Amino acid sequence: MTRRVTIADIAAAAGVSKGAVSYALNGRPGVSETTRTKILAIAAEMGFVPNRAARSLSVSSAQAVGIALRRSARTIGIEPYFMELISGIEATLSAGSFGLTLQIVGTVEEELEVYRRWWAERRVDGVFLCDVGTSDQRLDFIADLGLPAVAVGGPIEGARFPAVWHDDAEPSRDILEYLYALGHRRVARIAGIPGLLHTAIRDKAYDDTAADLAFESVTTIHSDYTGEQGAQITRRLLSSAKRPTAIVYDNDVMAVAGLGVAHELGLEIPEQLSLVAWDDSQLCRLTHPALTSLTRDIPAYGAKCAEVLMSLIGAATETALQTTETRTFSVQCKPAQLSPRGSTGPAQN
Amino acid sequence: MTRRVTIADIAAAAGVSKGAVSYALNGRPGVSETTRTKILAIAAEMGFVPNRAARSLSVSSAQAVGIALRRSARTIGIEPYFMELISGIEATLSAGSFGLTLQIVGTVEEELEVYRRWWAERRVDGVFLCDVGTSDQRLDFIADLGLPAVAVGGPIEGARFPAVWHDDAEPSRDILEYLYALGHRRVARIAGIPGLLHTAIRDKAYDDTAADLAFESVTTIHSDYTGEQGAQITRRLLSSAKRPTAIVYDNDVMAVAGLGVAHELGLEIPEQLSLVAWDDSQLCRLTHPALTSLTRDIPAYGAKCAEVLMSLIGAATETALQTTETRTFSVQCKPAQLSPRGSTGPAQN
Repeated sequence: MTRRVTIADIAAAAGVSKGAVSYALNGRPGVSETTRTKILAIAAEMGFVPNRAARSLSVSSAQAVGIALRRSARTIGIEPYFMELISGIEATLSAGSFGLTLQIVGTVEEELEVYRRWWAERRVDGVFLCDVGTSDQRLDFIADLGLPAVAVGGPIEGARFPAVWHDDAEPSRDILEYLYALGHRRVARIAGIPGLLHTAIRDKAYDDTAADLAFESVTTIHSDYTGEQGAQITRRLLSSAKRPTAIVYDNDVMAVAGLGVAHELGLEIPEQLSLVAWDDSQLCRLTHPALTSLTRDIPAYGAKCAEVLMSLIGAATETALQTTETRTFSVQCKPAQLSPRGSTGPAQN
Repeated sequence: MTRRVTIADIAAAAGVSKGAVSYALNGRPGVSETTRTKILAIAAEMGFVPNRAARSLSVSSAQAVGIALRRSARTIGIEPYFMELISGIEATLSAGSFGLTLQIVGTVEEELEVYRRWWAERRVDGVFLCDVGTSDQRLDFIADLGLPAVAVGGPIEGARFPAVWHDDAEPSRDILEYLYALGHRRVARIAGIPGLLHTAIRDKAYDDTAADLAFESVTTIHSDYTGEQGAQITRRLLSSAKRPTAIVYDNDVMAVAGLGVAHELGLEIPEQLSLVAWDDSQLCRLTHPALTSLTRDIPAYGAKCAEVLMSLIGAATETALQTTETRTFSVQCKPAQLSPRGSTGPAQN
């Protein structure tokens, strides 16, 4: 069993008192510069690491940030988005030696309770807020706590903390114009959860673009993002008399499910139906044909979110808290780019 | 801005000294039982939560456990397994108010360094060890640190901490016998990473079962679990002169990729090729045809792992550390069950 190196061990090795070691390690007066240098060198050589709990107490930092995800155990695994986001966050946090605390919650009440507890027990120095809603009680709750936070999504009007986001309007226009150019006149979109901010932004961009072009129909149906609903809605759409010739999915899992339904109905892809997926995980390149997708660099997005939160925590430590309260900046990442693949082609109207 | 309730606030509200509040909250002598009860009631009413860092210091507990995953940012998202496992772990931890610290690492050296740091800085009270290898330096490293741990996988011979595992041998036999009964005589398996313990157990079970039955060929090819390799190996197998009539995949993502390749080559499923996936995520039911799978309850598995770790942490706190060192128990979960779906059928030899 390896034993932790203690201040007493360093004191013995350096031939000084424990008090002197403590002064040296904490950068406090009470030892000469020569002694301090010698003690620090010995401590480093012995592999001394300060006890985090003791250090947290002195520097008032948990050296950790938190992320709470509101998803069921059965559905969270299937969406590559969150793990890719977390990977990107971690790459940045590790560089700063911060830990990531992950909590999966069932309801918004549970989620608020997690933030309250994290804050009250000083378990985290800041949080990432996912799935930002159009009207989101969590925003004021977190801001009122004074917990440093970054919203993963936006833009958020009157936000009391930074939002890191992609413009979803431009890619929405890109898809519709691309499908229109391919001759599609009946287009359906299986959208995400209606209360989410980015769903609302995409909804509006679709309506605006559709109004400018001579489509026969542009239908939007909301879903819960699961493959099951993606399949059900696709089956219903494709069984209608005037079925769409192109379907756009708000995530990759639903697009894979939609492709399964098209195969089930014996439809040739893309001859009889074109399919487009938002978010381009590896999944989109595993199917046959591969799925035309909207490509974003999700790990890079996570890294940017972490960078902003880390700078915010640094800032909150150095400056007064009211500065944080009135901080309203917004970080925009590169919008998703259309990656055309085998699942889209000219319409046979 | 909400302010944290302090001991001074409680003292003022109760009309006692801060020292009395401290005695009452810490269950130490120095106040009468009547005063203690009154102080505790006021503290509870005011929503007092002890500072975790301060409490960690006194009870020597981080109130957190850790999990380090060795995967790249680009591939971790696609495998539903880990998020399902984590969901199950969290459900159990939350009940005990423990947090989960997640770390994604690139190499085994980085992973060992994470355990060392977590231990040295007392960031976690225990860890989950994933992807157990046939010869795994992490086992002794963690046991030597004295860090409570649970191996997610096994059985591990001479393990110095508990392993929670499924028997992979029995389901391996089940698949081969099922395919043999369907008339398949040339079967291939696209296996996982060769150094992993469960890959080795499956390898041996395949060899043993194949030896008992009159197959023409039973081929095992190892992979890195990614969809890309799953697709490449499937393409190579199906392009060979004596191509297999059935392929078994060691995870669901590779099976989805294999189905994509079968579609690409114009093969009818299951008439010309049968496909079986290990691990039955939602993904297996989104394809057409749906994939015959080996079904395990991964969230329940994660919950069991968390239960064992929590009891171990409890035990380690109450009893001496040498008890932990010599503890060698093993918890076996229900093996995976074959769920036949549309991707398997009688062979056309």
